[in-house]
Amino acid sequence: MNQQKNLPIGVFDSGVGGLTVAREIMRQMPNEKIVYFGDTARVPYGSKSSKTILKYSGQIERFLLSRGVKAIAVACNTASAYALPELEKDCPVPIIGVIKPGAKTAAEITKNGRIGVIGTTATISSGIYTEYIRELMPDVMVHGRACPLFVPLVEEGLWEDPVTEEIARRYLAEMMDEGIDTLILGCTHYPLIRKTLAKVVGDRVRLVNPAYETAKELEQMLESRGLLAEERPALGSADSQYSFYVSDMADKFQQFANSIIKYGILSAKTINIEEY
Amino acid sequence: MNQQKNLPIGVFDSGVGGLTVAREIMRQMPNEKIVYFGDTARVPYGSKSSKTILKYSGQIERFLLSRGVKAIAVACNTASAYALPELEKDCPVPIIGVIKPGAKTAAEITKNGRIGVIGTTATISSGIYTEYIRELMPDVMVHGRACPLFVPLVEEGLWEDPVTEEIARRYLAEMMDEGIDTLILGCTHYPLIRKTLAKVVGDRVRLVNPAYETAKELEQMLESRGLLAEERPALGSADSQYSFYVSDMADKFQQFANSIIKYGILSAKTINIEEY
Repeated sequence: MNQQKNLPIGVFDSGVGGLTVAREIMRQMPNEKIVYFGDTARVPYGSKSSKTILKYSGQIERFLLSRGVKAIAVACNTASAYALPELEKDCPVPIIGVIKPGAKTAAEITKNGRIGVIGTTATISSGIYTEYIRELMPDVMVHGRACPLFVPLVEEGLWEDPVTEEIARRYLAEMMDEGIDTLILGCTHYPLIRKTLAKVVGDRVRLVNPAYETAKELEQMLESRGLLAEERPALGSADSQYSFYVSDMADKFQQFANSIIKYGILSAKTINIEEY
Repeated sequence: MNQQKNLPIGVFDSGVGGLTVAREIMRQMPNEKIVYFGDTARVPYGSKSSKTILKYSGQIERFLLSRGVKAIAVACNTASAYALPELEKDCPVPIIGVIKPGAKTAAEITKNGRIGVIGTTATISSGIYTEYIRELMPDVMVHGRACPLFVPLVEEGLWEDPVTEEIARRYLAEMMDEGIDTLILGCTHYPLIRKTLAKVVGDRVRLVNPAYETAKELEQMLESRGLLAEERPALGSADSQYSFYVSDMADKFQQFANSIIKYGILSAKTINIEEY
């Protein structure tokens, strides 16, 4: 029996947003254990430089490896955009980001070759969605737009609110004028305002949620390497199925997590990430 | 001649907001040199725990002391609320926060004893404005309200915008119903949306900007200790009058700084604050 199969998947994000990715992994792979880390002391990453994003992501990779994970999902678009190639170097376990799966799906479903991407300032500045989509579809037009207010609006709970709708209309006006038919939600917070975004873009634009696609691709990756867990961990076993770690404000994290994940969060522990 | 007089004043903030305090020091004390530090890698502080705020503030205090400052102004409400007593311990130079000066002014100008305070989640949770105002005026009613969207709205440039006005109406509705006549802008970003706030609260509510009061109190403190600079540093001297340091994104900082300070920013340098 391959003991490695029973090890957890490491998932990390700059904060709570990556829980939308963890949630998809829970839905699509109910047998898997997860160790989640949210960098709540240093969130947000979207306004930081590539150097800082790289440094912070490296510390988190070392922390997750110290917890004995069998694979790592970088559930943060900004960290995926800047740090993935560096994190892959010398990483003893398979590692996946959220950008490629989202880019691939968008390229598959667009009919008119006009794709919009929204994300943090850092993710959009990186141009990485455009790069990946062009590799698959050279003649595509990709319109990127940084939406710095969406994360605070989500965290303030204004998921379906006229203010969020008004801000979305401003951010998306230009790409709507350009006739996009596909919109990538290039930040893990954005699926939470999916309804508002759908209202603004209308029926003719399809929304791509990279969280969903990433979980699907992660499953294929684990399967191809014989790493899928074969059965669900026993309830009440010493190590619970889902463990959550943060760098600050465990209480607030737990509260937010419980509002979007219906499995119940047993506990979130605070660790000193600068030690890794 | 007292050489200490010619040393700079250290000013720090979690990011760019403290520039409103630096600007007041420049206006009120044109002879003084300033060393400013903005913790742009780890901004915002307003959503962090007291333990983390304390740790980060201590690192910055050590950095400023290493630059040979004659006094320190904590230009961040959140850091003032949580870290000031700890920073004062063993500090070889006088140190001042923004909370006490703001609280004092509000207690002086209120006529009906009903004072509103707005700030970050951490500042409002600390209850420190209420505590300081009550020491001066035991029968006062202080209504605090955390306004987490104001900082991102300011940083997105929506200083006079219907969205900011709508959000301000929601945040301030309850304290307006309670009949406040004085409102403390308990976060260094808020003076930048002063016009919008004034429109929402109307003529009968006076706005208190702690940045202004802090610079006034700092001047008195320096004067009483014989530490005021006697003349303006010569132009073109080796060490320029104003030095700016950040922990990340020096370019973006410079751009923002130039939009609110009209003295011209010569340069902002990035340092590794975790080393202090």
